Amino acid sequence: MSTDTTARKYKVLGTRPIRHDGVDKVTGRAIYTADLQLTGLVHGQVLRSPHPHAKIKSIDTSAAEKLAGVLAVATAADFPDLKDKIANLGEGSVNLAHLGANVLAHGKVLYKGHAVAAVAASSPHIADEAIRLIKVVYEPLPAVTWVLDAMKADAPLLHEDLRTDSMGKRGDRPTNVATHLHFEKGDVAAGFEQADVVVEREFRTASVHQGYIEPHASTAHWNSDGHLTIWTSTQGAFTARQQTAELLQIPVSKVTVVPCEIGGGFGGKIAVYLEPVAAVLSRKCGRPVRMTMTRTDVFEGTGPTPGSFVRVKLGAKKDGTLTAAEAYLAYDAGAFPGGMIGPGCMCIFSCYDIPHAVVDGYDVCNNKPKTQAYRAPGATQAAFACEQVVDELADKLKIDPIELRLKNAAKEGTRRVDGPVYPRVGLVECLEAARSSDHWKSKLTGKNRGRGIAAGFWFNIGLKSSCAANVNPDGTVTLTEGSTDIGGTRTSIAMQLAETLGITAEDVQPHVGDTDSVGYTDVTGGSRVTFATGLAAYECALDIQEQMRHRAAILWECEAAKVTCTDGVYSANGKSMPFKELAANLTHTGGPVVGRASVSPEGSTNAFGVHIADVEVDPDTGKTTVLRYTSIQDAGCAVHPSYVEGQMQGGAVQGIGWALNEEYFFDERHTMRNHSFLDYRMPTALDVPMIETIIVEVPNPTHPYGVRGVGETPIVAPPATIANALHKATGTRLTDLPMSPPKVWKAIS
Amino acid sequence: MSTDTTARKYKVLGTRPIRHDGVDKVTGRAIYTADLQLTGLVHGQVLRSPHPHAKIKSIDTSAAEKLAGVLAVATAADFPDLKDKIANLGEGSVNLAHLGANVLAHGKVLYKGHAVAAVAASSPHIADEAIRLIKVVYEPLPAVTWVLDAMKADAPLLHEDLRTDSMGKRGDRPTNVATHLHFEKGDVAAGFEQADVVVEREFRTASVHQGYIEPHASTAHWNSDGHLTIWTSTQGAFTARQQTAELLQIPVSKVTVVPCEIGGGFGGKIAVYLEPVAAVLSRKCGRPVRMTMTRTDVFEGTGPTPGSFVRVKLGAKKDGTLTAAEAYLAYDAGAFPGGMIGPGCMCIFSCYDIPHAVVDGYDVCNNKPKTQAYRAPGATQAAFACEQVVDELADKLKIDPIELRLKNAAKEGTRRVDGPVYPRVGLVECLEAARSSDHWKSKLTGKNRGRGIAAGFWFNIGLKSSCAANVNPDGTVTLTEGSTDIGGTRTSIAMQLAETLGITAEDVQPHVGDTDSVGYTDVTGGSRVTFATGLAAYECALDIQEQMRHRAAILWECEAAKVTCTDGVYSANGKSMPFKELAANLTHTGGPVVGRASVSPEGSTNAFGVHIADVEVDPDTGKTTVLRYTSIQDAGCAVHPSYVEGQMQGGAVQGIGWALNEEYFFDERHTMRNHSFLDYRMPTALDVPMIETIIVEVPNPTHPYGVRGVGETPIVAPPATIANALHKATGTRLTDLPMSPPKVWKAIS
Repeated sequence: MSTDTTARKYKVLGTRPIRHDGVDKVTGRAIYTADLQLTGLVHGQVLRSPHPHAKIKSIDTSAAEKLAGVLAVATAADFPDLKDKIANLGEGSVNLAHLGANVLAHGKVLYKGHAVAAVAASSPHIADEAIRLIKVVYEPLPAVTWVLDAMKADAPLLHEDLRTDSMGKRGDRPTNVATHLHFEKGDVAAGFEQADVVVEREFRTASVHQGYIEPHASTAHWNSDGHLTIWTSTQGAFTARQQTAELLQIPVSKVTVVPCEIGGGFGGKIAVYLEPVAAVLSRKCGRPVRMTMTRTDVFEGTGPTPGSFVRVKLGAKKDGTLTAAEAYLAYDAGAFPGGMIGPGCMCIFSCYDIPHAVVDGYDVCNNKPKTQAYRAPGATQAAFACEQVVDELADKLKIDPIELRLKNAAKEGTRRVDGPVYPRVGLVECLEAARSSDHWKSKLTGKNRGRGIAAGFWFNIGLKSSCAANVNPDGTVTLTEGSTDIGGTRTSIAMQLAETLGITAEDVQPHVGDTDSVGYTDVTGGSRVTFATGLAAYECALDIQEQMRHRAAILWECEAAKVTCTDGVYSANGKSMPFKELAANLTHTGGPVVGRASVSPEGSTNAFGVHIADVEVDPDTGKTTVLRYTSIQDAGCAVHPSYVEGQMQGGAVQGIGWALNEEYFFDERHTMRNHSFLDYRMPTALDVPMIETIIVEVPNPTHPYGVRGVGETPIVAPPATIANALHKATGTRLTDLPMSPPKVWKAIS
Repeated sequence: MSTDTTARKYKVLGTRPIRHDGVDKVTGRAIYTADLQLTGLVHGQVLRSPHPHAKIKSIDTSAAEKLAGVLAVATAADFPDLKDKIANLGEGSVNLAHLGANVLAHGKVLYKGHAVAAVAASSPHIADEAIRLIKVVYEPLPAVTWVLDAMKADAPLLHEDLRTDSMGKRGDRPTNVATHLHFEKGDVAAGFEQADVVVEREFRTASVHQGYIEPHASTAHWNSDGHLTIWTSTQGAFTARQQTAELLQIPVSKVTVVPCEIGGGFGGKIAVYLEPVAAVLSRKCGRPVRMTMTRTDVFEGTGPTPGSFVRVKLGAKKDGTLTAAEAYLAYDAGAFPGGMIGPGCMCIFSCYDIPHAVVDGYDVCNNKPKTQAYRAPGATQAAFACEQVVDELADKLKIDPIELRLKNAAKEGTRRVDGPVYPRVGLVECLEAARSSDHWKSKLTGKNRGRGIAAGFWFNIGLKSSCAANVNPDGTVTLTEGSTDIGGTRTSIAMQLAETLGITAEDVQPHVGDTDSVGYTDVTGGSRVTFATGLAAYECALDIQEQMRHRAAILWECEAAKVTCTDGVYSANGKSMPFKELAANLTHTGGPVVGRASVSPEGSTNAFGVHIADVEVDPDTGKTTVLRYTSIQDAGCAVHPSYVEGQMQGGAVQGIGWALNEEYFFDERHTMRNHSFLDYRMPTALDVPMIETIIVEVPNPTHPYGVRGVGETPIVAPPATIANALHKATGTRLTDLPMSPPKVWKAIS
């Protein structure tokens, strides 16, 4: 179900054309990295650490090198020295030594599955055999995987050079704390004094993985002229290009990254893993080298989202007005600094207008794979905590949870604890849509059942995007854009070009360019693509429109300033021509028309969502069944409503998995025991009901069509929503993720 | 040897950087069409006519269809009805019914090798076998292959609907004459009355083939969404796209043409042959279909340049001043109208300022493959005639042949017989360079030896080109351009971008885009690419420069109008930054910079050349050895002198082959008997001396860097040059091409 709250203003936006790459995807014709055949292709394989923490005493690759069919062997020694090198990579600065040591371990292994060495061989089987011939002598070290344990004074230390003290400065002694963030607003002590009710609770979440269906895959060819070409599964071709170039210390212009189709990323395919290793192997053997991961490699060797500890304290008056908030967050960084603590701290209180608030956040290294972004990274853990405390306040104050949230909802002018002041946002409208939804108004009866509600927020990002477009003589337009297409953005970008030019979505043929064929474009992430690359398409259309006005002026022998363009129809002096007809008449006006644009929009697009869940708990097993689930979200402008709904549904299902089942299960040796999809249970279609969706459209004032990002917000609210529903069903508040059957059974027994 | 007559004005233009695609070409990594592997690829094969002229009574494909492994069979019946359909294809209008019937014969076969039917099968061998199972019943018809025979009243007729009378209008009765052109200037009769000497001679030339090393190859995939993708060896991706779309009567936007690397074209890879057939086969079987030609297919099934008959009459005063000229040209069209008579007529007197002139030209259908462009199409045949008559006049008037040409040389303001008035051109400078060359000043002694000289002209074309370019953060620029690169134009275009931006040629990474990835760009032909696509690169650089000025203004917080750019250094208010430094500082000025341009320059770029040859004839065999050969040409601005020299040398060698050996040798059944490179002798490195080159640079006033096209002029003068040298060596004037040993021996015996 979808209800658009605004009337149709546009001809193309808001319709549901068939996606341009649909046929290729459903017929299996689309080329994913592992499908790619190249002449002379050889196969790479990675040797991974069996220890969660160990010194590497020595690596002996001589036996592997002697094996017939082995073409190259690589270790960290094949990379340039990256000590103290920092690179600015689109979304922030990156410590290259850490990035490089994650790609191939440098001196120490920091998690089980950490890459140690790699080989290239004429067949994957020989590569597997060669890997086993590499002799690594380790000196095992004590390990730590729980974030609070890693913060203890006597914890095993991952990095001798980390010295973060309690104020975030460089302290005197080594620590696993990489960062301490502190945000403050108003007078928190005074705020809590004004409160009639105060609730404080602690929450814990386990590591969970993005679970993209396509494992990482990369093919690299280092040509004899020194030019490196990489075909890879990545969320950002330019980001992969820059990371690889920086790790190899070569200019970005010596690297071409060709983004193949991508089978999911959710934030987990931004950092490079295989790309630089395949490159080094190719440089050594002169052949294109293909590397692919198994599912176990993906779980053990690539980044999950942080496990976390969060403590939230909220104070409210009797009428429900929130007076003060306090939060303490400690998130896994995993093996290297640079976790998701920042957005966790930014998002935890972002749904509410709270006069006094303080947030302290800690990014903590421990012996897990380096954490990576996972759909609204860090926000789900924070919302799991905050939204349960809000729920408890509503219970205690006997105020309807929607009314309590409406009373305190962030709106235009609200200042977040981390600083920014909201422009026009749509949380109030989402809460109102929830209140008037069929789901909320319906009755839920029966034993062991409960209904929960929670809000979620993600700030979304802008960053840089480029487009180029060419007008065909039949009035269609080819569009090259730089954003890899994970969720249908070829179409949502093309639709914005079409709307602006006054043609149909089918009249635009969108293509994702490689890094040589399109202007710099940041990563597909942060819910930015339909917003920012769509904005580039809009600007590109304006560039074309301006040229078309001049062409019409030539045809009609008048001044260009006289030519107007309305709904794609060009007019002057009583003559008029629609875009397509004008396109067919360009031949004698100066030839083809080519448009281009690059954008770097400031600020964020702020998307809010509200989720409602009905659950039923089996008291004998603790198993939770989701009976009904509704996701409500402000999309600003739902460019292609089916894709918005798809994002809302997909995020909800991932969030339900995170809420009820998913976790990295570590044994006492800090080894993940459930590193397959058989044991790491993600929800299937049989596990969840049809996710109902209600799209709210409160136009984003910073985009010409009001577009907001929509991809990440859907995963923020589900664990809190399910927890609040479980509380209603069981009378017990569950504070640890996942709320798996054993934990629920234990809580209710 | 190369002598630049102008001082170095530029930093990049005039240098000789390594070509950007060099390593890929020499290491075998470059992907030609036949190298391409696609999943599910099947193999197409063509059945060709054994008759030079026949009615097709019936085609029975049932046995072929039943053969195991055969996936599709196609005949002309699988194409839409194209009767009376005309398409405007870049360089002129094309009769689609004729183009279609050349691709697969429709009712009649018009030459031996004419394609009749095609199959797609799981292996090339099964395809070969299936072809033999197709039963075609022919009714053979009398055939004609010599142009003058085809003009006779009782000649076998190829097309019932051709009715061209002697004035070029539609006449009463069928004919093989497709076109009659008539150009006239001044009063020719009066002009000849003023002459003291008049020379009139007749000349004949045989069909010769472009002889590109890579046979035609195309792979087509008709996707289930109706989108057709074609990978092909073509001189023009957009031209191939339009021809294919028109033949299949689908919109151009439903066709993507990916131009693979091309192993030579010389004009012969503009018309489509395999592309539409592979497309139809793919539509029928749903698989990608690859088709390749053998060398015999290429000779018998694709277009040679016209065989011709030319009569030239020139009158001159005693002082050498030309007073009048008259020419009659009859050129093969081959199987379908649309031969090279137009440029033949335009070029025949184009080197000279003649007050009174008349030219009549006839385009004549006969039972040879449809003629196609071959490097300065039609001009070599014309120059072979005119330049020998000029030579004979010089002999009769006892005037040095260079002085005679200098006296009458075309220059700025000269009006050609076909109308255009020259802007600044460089024939005088070329003749002067020839006169002062080491070759001309050297002594030639010995028996049976002679030195000849001749001039050549090609008008070159402009047409439409597009570019887009993206600035990398390391200050390099990626360039996507639409011109397929046959002769090094990636580099010659990139150099113009580099010169304009103030960076090096190596800082630009040029790429040829497919038809979805770059704006419309006309064919690589007409010596237009370095001129017109280079102009697009120049305009694209200006677009980037303008944006960079605005970015510098943001950095320096000043008005953009205050920022100047000189030699790639941006300056304002005492601050300055070179392009590369500015490129590294764009992040906070609005993101990436993307440039674009499309151009459609008017008019032509007029390139003249003068060739000198020393030959020796073996009186016992008639074999001619070229002892020394110099090519002098006005390049306007030699962007990359090595490529200019390469074009001059390559054209000279092709012209020498045409002069001395090459011809389609037809037997009495109008069947080509020498359809392999063993029997069709093209010159090898052992057959010719090193071709010496002298580049003259008289800037073209219509290009910002003065660039003229250089690719075609080099082939115009060689046959006349060799003939003039043979006359000096033997005292005999040879008027039939090729001047092969039997003909020379007969002439001197």
